[in-house]
Amino acid sequence: MPPANRTRRRTLADAAIALLAEQGAHGLTHRAVEARAGVPAGTASNYFRSREALLVTAAERVLELHFADMAAAAEGTTAPTGPEELIDMIAESLWGAATVLRGRYLAIFELRLEARRRPALEEVLTRLERTAVTDTAALHRALGTRVPESAVQTLATLYGGALFTLVTGPVGAFDQEGVRALVATMVRGVQG
Amino acid sequence: MPPANRTRRRTLADAAIALLAEQGAHGLTHRAVEARAGVPAGTASNYFRSREALLVTAAERVLELHFADMAAAAEGTTAPTGPEELIDMIAESLWGAATVLRGRYLAIFELRLEARRRPALEEVLTRLERTAVTDTAALHRALGTRVPESAVQTLATLYGGALFTLVTGPVGAFDQEGVRALVATMVRGVQG
Repeated sequence: MPPANRTRRRTLADAAIALLAEQGAHGLTHRAVEARAGVPAGTASNYFRSREALLVTAAERVLELHFADMAAAAEGTTAPTGPEELIDMIAESLWGAATVLRGRYLAIFELRLEARRRPALEEVLTRLERTAVTDTAALHRALGTRVPESAVQTLATLYGGALFTLVTGPVGAFDQEGVRALVATMVRGVQG
Repeated sequence: MPPANRTRRRTLADAAIALLAEQGAHGLTHRAVEARAGVPAGTASNYFRSREALLVTAAERVLELHFADMAAAAEGTTAPTGPEELIDMIAESLWGAATVLRGRYLAIFELRLEARRRPALEEVLTRLERTAVTDTAALHRALGTRVPESAVQTLATLYGGALFTLVTGPVGAFDQEGVRALVATMVRGVQG
């Protein structure tokens, strides 16, 4: 794909994520994506043959962004010296996901529910989530966090679940301290 | 309300929950509820003036069922003698919620996402969730679990989040042992 097309494809995928977050899976149509991205009618159909292709692209884009952020955060980070530093690190990530990046994660949760009615989407999401856990485990190893591989899946399940509660609950229901307390519980739990 | 009407209302609410679980919030209409409940057209409008009223009723019914189950489970249960028994108790509840009662909790998560676009529904859900936490705290006290009041909210957030992952993930992705490991992490985390 020529670079300009790749950029256009990403723009459309980002518009799809924004629509999912604002209007739910039901609001995600080719026409709505074009309007949101400010591109001519018919553009989205050139890139995505079906609504399912649109949904799958949005899922792939969220996971791509998610891991790019994780890698960037890890870049230059020194290994946490103990559980408190590990808690700080994960709490910062969860707080950012629940606030600045709220829309992105709302989109993925909308897709998770929609996937129950779309086996092709479910397959993609499950594959992406597995990759995310593997990549996260690699990051823990690289950082020397001493979280055992077997605990990374548990931590990921609890982190993802807490994120659902945070992004879908009323804005302002949790503060940064509350989020840190949640993460401290998870980390103590897997290391206890 | 006469008893027959109360029964009819519950039947319609249960049909609404089933529809939410199967088709998402978008599938919940008066007509669909009537078809699902096998009642004459127009019946649902007699009980619920608007779609929002339908959504709110479904939310109230889920929480009513949720707490009735919790109370029944607690009935005759002796106080857990230690953390392992407490883990067993919560793991059994989470396993049941993720399997036998999957539809009911899928419905509440559909409502949670829909609530972002419906302030009246969000208000009801938030109130119901607060009541659920208060009632759960009372149950912990009655059972003498020694989970401090402040930890009940954390435990509820982690339990609810894990339940989202369990009910929306592919069927069979978790087994009973995996669910117990999740709960053990939460309980160790709040007590650690």
